[in-house]
Amino acid sequence: MYIPTFDDVIAAHDRIRPYIHRTPVLTSSYFNELTGAELFFKCENFQKAGAFKVRGACNSVFGLTDEQARFGVCTHSSGNHALSLSYAAGRRGIPCNVVMPRTAPQAKKDAVRGYGGVITECEPSTSSREEVFARVQAATGGEFVHPYNDPRVVAGQATCSREMLEQVDGLDAIIAPIGGGGMISGTCLTMSAIGPGIDVYAAEPKNADDAFRSFKAGHIIADDAPETVADGLKVPLKDLTWHFVSRHVRDVFTATEEQIIEAMKMTWKRMKIVMEPSCAVPLATILANPEVFRGRRVGVVITGGNVDLDTLPWMKG
Amino acid sequence: MYIPTFDDVIAAHDRIRPYIHRTPVLTSSYFNELTGAELFFKCENFQKAGAFKVRGACNSVFGLTDEQARFGVCTHSSGNHALSLSYAAGRRGIPCNVVMPRTAPQAKKDAVRGYGGVITECEPSTSSREEVFARVQAATGGEFVHPYNDPRVVAGQATCSREMLEQVDGLDAIIAPIGGGGMISGTCLTMSAIGPGIDVYAAEPKNADDAFRSFKAGHIIADDAPETVADGLKVPLKDLTWHFVSRHVRDVFTATEEQIIEAMKMTWKRMKIVMEPSCAVPLATILANPEVFRGRRVGVVITGGNVDLDTLPWMKG
Repeated sequence: MYIPTFDDVIAAHDRIRPYIHRTPVLTSSYFNELTGAELFFKCENFQKAGAFKVRGACNSVFGLTDEQARFGVCTHSSGNHALSLSYAAGRRGIPCNVVMPRTAPQAKKDAVRGYGGVITECEPSTSSREEVFARVQAATGGEFVHPYNDPRVVAGQATCSREMLEQVDGLDAIIAPIGGGGMISGTCLTMSAIGPGIDVYAAEPKNADDAFRSFKAGHIIADDAPETVADGLKVPLKDLTWHFVSRHVRDVFTATEEQIIEAMKMTWKRMKIVMEPSCAVPLATILANPEVFRGRRVGVVITGGNVDLDTLPWMKG
Repeated sequence: MYIPTFDDVIAAHDRIRPYIHRTPVLTSSYFNELTGAELFFKCENFQKAGAFKVRGACNSVFGLTDEQARFGVCTHSSGNHALSLSYAAGRRGIPCNVVMPRTAPQAKKDAVRGYGGVITECEPSTSSREEVFARVQAATGGEFVHPYNDPRVVAGQATCSREMLEQVDGLDAIIAPIGGGGMISGTCLTMSAIGPGIDVYAAEPKNADDAFRSFKAGHIIADDAPETVADGLKVPLKDLTWHFVSRHVRDVFTATEEQIIEAMKMTWKRMKIVMEPSCAVPLATILANPEVFRGRRVGVVITGGNVDLDTLPWMKG
């Protein structure tokens, strides 16, 4: 297993810069007062394709030789990696096949098709996803770009925290949601190279707390089909992301579904930004653990904004 | 009637700078492709108190002598001026009494109270509003800050387009929603002084098209209680705003309720920003009149983001 280095991050950043936004960092006096911390929100919901995943996807697609790119790319994803890879492949002009759970948000499926990706649906479990994907890959011969367990992807995601360090001085900590661990691994990679004093925290739904339990147990624990409103965070850690999580993450916090939805709605209301439920998990855990963050300058990664506007979680029931 | 000048705008800007944000200008390659224009969205939904109206409110409140400020301020407003004035008064530490229609969005009433404003409710018509307000003003003795027909307010709103000219080069046109005409008047004031070649367009709901009809007729036509999803745009022009609209506005465009809701939802979905229905009216009219805007660099004022997240217009029915 190749472990990407910060040189890979610099190369990735140069490679992807024409295809991504340098997203803004927003602050909120309301949330600063509420938490007692100074929060800096890195708004990847404003990113191309609506999520940070376009960084890793572009690094993977544009790093391929013409020979490697001949049959396009393929992947499985709960959503944002699928549409990011479709976007990247579209910019390069190669095919993209993606396996998505049939329960993925309609907004994400529409976006994948809008970028030219071809969807094959699977059941909403890791086992079904991997089984269907094996068939799709065999049929298309595309280059597999794993949504997170891939050094090209981790190096791409790491460009997000690299930008954040350029945009905000004196950070004490950075917190991001954790699903498969791609963003967190990229953050660990950047911080270990150019922000060694900055604590990296991971935030996870209590209903899909495999990373939390893995972190406490010291080895990967995977759940097959967790149920959470944070649809981007259902997947388990894999060996590459476990490498970073186990070595560099300071702590993993969890939030209940109610805390996530409340934090999501508060952010929409107060910061006037549209973001996914997954992005609300860090703020929910900050609110639930104020003693950890009080008085500190904390970077918070808002990972994406691809949400079904017709079925917002506070509208249900 | 005193007509504010650009010197008043400069003084206003210096006066209010500590209390407002210099809001960002966002672009969207999606909307540029869709319209054939280059659109620059001035995001006053990210403004303090969630709307541009805080500019005029702060200019009014912080321009008062201590003697004038003794009994606080009072106003009537469908929402954003009420909460902006409450915010400004709170920052100065003086009382604020506001008359609001009982049908105003709950989010706006909550925000007024959150800033310390005291609400008296009226019926949702101009006549009821003015009658209830006369009683409140007599009882409190507060300084009346009209939501738009006030030179201090117009000079404050004009700072928004002044910032925009600093942020975007080579604008050909600027378009903003029109209700009572405060933002449009401020825009006309700025453009006539420092952007004379830039066309100013006003955008209005077809269901509340009194400014459109006034503009075509050459004199003010007022409706008493128009019905539109764009709750911020129900009020009529008054003499001061008519002065600017009749002299400087290039044209007034209207949009149907369906066009407004569709443009609002598209903006949330594509730009990932939370904004009020009123703010969607300019984009709706651009989409409906592409020949006017194609190939031009157009500033679009996103006026505010205070919306009830529990009752989004595309959720109704």
